[in-house]
Amino acid sequence: MRKIGEREIDDIALGAALLGAGGGGDPYIGRLIALNAVKDCGPVTLMDPDEVPDDAFIVPIAMMGAPTVLCEKAINGGEYRTLAKMVESYFGRKIFAFMPIEAGGVNSMLPIAAAARLGLPLVDVDGMGRAFPELQMVTFTIGGMSATPMALTDEKGNSCIFNTITNKWTEELARSVTMSCGGSVSVCLYTMSGKEMKTYGVRNIVTRSEVLGRALRTIKETSQDSTEERFLEITNGLRLFKGKIVDVKREVRGAFNFGTVVLEGIGDDKGHRAAVEFQNENLCAMVDSRIIATVPDLICLVDCNSFTPVPTDALRYGKRVLVVGLKCFERWRTEEGLALVGPRYFGLDTDYIPLEERCRT
Amino acid sequence: MRKIGEREIDDIALGAALLGAGGGGDPYIGRLIALNAVKDCGPVTLMDPDEVPDDAFIVPIAMMGAPTVLCEKAINGGEYRTLAKMVESYFGRKIFAFMPIEAGGVNSMLPIAAAARLGLPLVDVDGMGRAFPELQMVTFTIGGMSATPMALTDEKGNSCIFNTITNKWTEELARSVTMSCGGSVSVCLYTMSGKEMKTYGVRNIVTRSEVLGRALRTIKETSQDSTEERFLEITNGLRLFKGKIVDVKREVRGAFNFGTVVLEGIGDDKGHRAAVEFQNENLCAMVDSRIIATVPDLICLVDCNSFTPVPTDALRYGKRVLVVGLKCFERWRTEEGLALVGPRYFGLDTDYIPLEERCRT
Repeated sequence: MRKIGEREIDDIALGAALLGAGGGGDPYIGRLIALNAVKDCGPVTLMDPDEVPDDAFIVPIAMMGAPTVLCEKAINGGEYRTLAKMVESYFGRKIFAFMPIEAGGVNSMLPIAAAARLGLPLVDVDGMGRAFPELQMVTFTIGGMSATPMALTDEKGNSCIFNTITNKWTEELARSVTMSCGGSVSVCLYTMSGKEMKTYGVRNIVTRSEVLGRALRTIKETSQDSTEERFLEITNGLRLFKGKIVDVKREVRGAFNFGTVVLEGIGDDKGHRAAVEFQNENLCAMVDSRIIATVPDLICLVDCNSFTPVPTDALRYGKRVLVVGLKCFERWRTEEGLALVGPRYFGLDTDYIPLEERCRT
Repeated sequence: MRKIGEREIDDIALGAALLGAGGGGDPYIGRLIALNAVKDCGPVTLMDPDEVPDDAFIVPIAMMGAPTVLCEKAINGGEYRTLAKMVESYFGRKIFAFMPIEAGGVNSMLPIAAAARLGLPLVDVDGMGRAFPELQMVTFTIGGMSATPMALTDEKGNSCIFNTITNKWTEELARSVTMSCGGSVSVCLYTMSGKEMKTYGVRNIVTRSEVLGRALRTIKETSQDSTEERFLEITNGLRLFKGKIVDVKREVRGAFNFGTVVLEGIGDDKGHRAAVEFQNENLCAMVDSRIIATVPDLICLVDCNSFTPVPTDALRYGKRVLVVGLKCFERWRTEEGLALVGPRYFGLDTDYIPLEERCRT
């Protein structure tokens, strides 16, 4: 158990933006939301999963919707309390702690803000170890847990509670309401016991984000000739491509950002061309039309010089980026994991081949 | 207080199908649902609004969606109990009685079935005195009442509870979920006290449907030369047009049936052409491009010979129909009423002129 304040938030925001693999919401806005909450209400207690009693009532909180919408139509600040009230009155139980459901610029930060504003602890765990676009894409689904009862509220004050027969149906119905509410909402889902959280969650993701973020900041602050090698070492990442953005295709459809970014190689990659497809998060990276990485492994784009993560909604013509691959949480590589978040689920015509094997060939 | 059994259901179904003004769901399916429930569980107690205590908890129940979908994907029979449980556990109160929200082939029948299956009384009241396509279009909205908390369930077992800032937002969000659930769902909304029901409801609509239905059946059963005059007298209707259906345009959009039916005059109307536009219910009737009736007045199509009401989803080429106009509930003709259900709300480029005035000119 330890406290997280402004400095920790800066680091978590930076690290989580990388783990967001292009999604999880805008890091700038996420950081501001968490910083303001901590400034107003003081630091937040971060608990290790093992410090949480088995029968504790743990509530994940997140934003749902298209990242491009999130960054224009954020929150009004009353959503945490509305959601907490809905969940507590539905279950007739007090919330013991919040937790993030995914890593990312907003979705790592919102639970910190909620914890600060409501004076509750945060657990150092999530359900993805990265960000994914659809709500059934969590380790808890592999564990047979239900996303519902799920509470949803928009910034105007509309709300609903869902109970569905499968987590894919939760995604279906909640996505429809998200679209009707203007493309982004705040949600609590996969409410669970301490025991379930410990059994199925991805542990220490907040701390991992923080350590990553601190290391990234160190490169930026100290190294004049900030080398790729150092960055790859810190992130344990595989270098996939380095290039200049020459085209970005985007479409907001079904409260998702779909699109493709095209890169023209620079440096060692001069003369080659890469493309990265995304649905909120980066799904697939190709170099000269050969697939070099796919979900569930993380495909991250960072600024060539500062190594700042570039989310899919911040892709701009002319920006120079390094594309790096990170290994996903082990459980995503199992048969059940790949059925949920493998390349074929996303309509990609390839079996999953682990990142490190694709890179070896 | 009286009992309604099989004979009454036959009459209510027929009369309510007329008051449905083209919508409210398929009378054949509605009738079967209610008959089966009464056969299984015995007759239902129909209460006059004045017999209901002011503090009683009254729950309207209905189906929501496109009528063409309702008649292929009906209900599984467990919806009443699911909805009742949701509502009772949300409010922590036992339901005193059900009521219909609108008149129509299914939506007059479903509350009877629910009352029979759950052993609860039905109140002789609704919120429209006819059928309308959108859920905020009830006298209770004029009375400032909220549609929410609203419970929704589909035949698969998905469910949700909405709380919204306006009734238009309830329509928005519930409509999205209805579409995602396949185009039709069962709902409880505008839960209210006995006092609110008495103050804002359209009284005696079930009895009115029954009396109308019985009279219609009498024409069909006794009169060899069943005259229009007798039909118009019974219904207090204004004869608008008689013709053969020569074209039907339909579109299922946003879980509504939109469309236009075109009639070629027969008998006195030979040489003229009429068109009726609908959104689930008939919205506007034109003869030779001149508007002769609009919402909120009722525009009803009935079979020329049998005087059986023809809902919008049963319109077929070659069918001969009489188009008749019925005056709407008085409160719909007020400024507040017309804002909710007047012609301009539905995108018709005309002010509301009462049916009887349009027919006089």
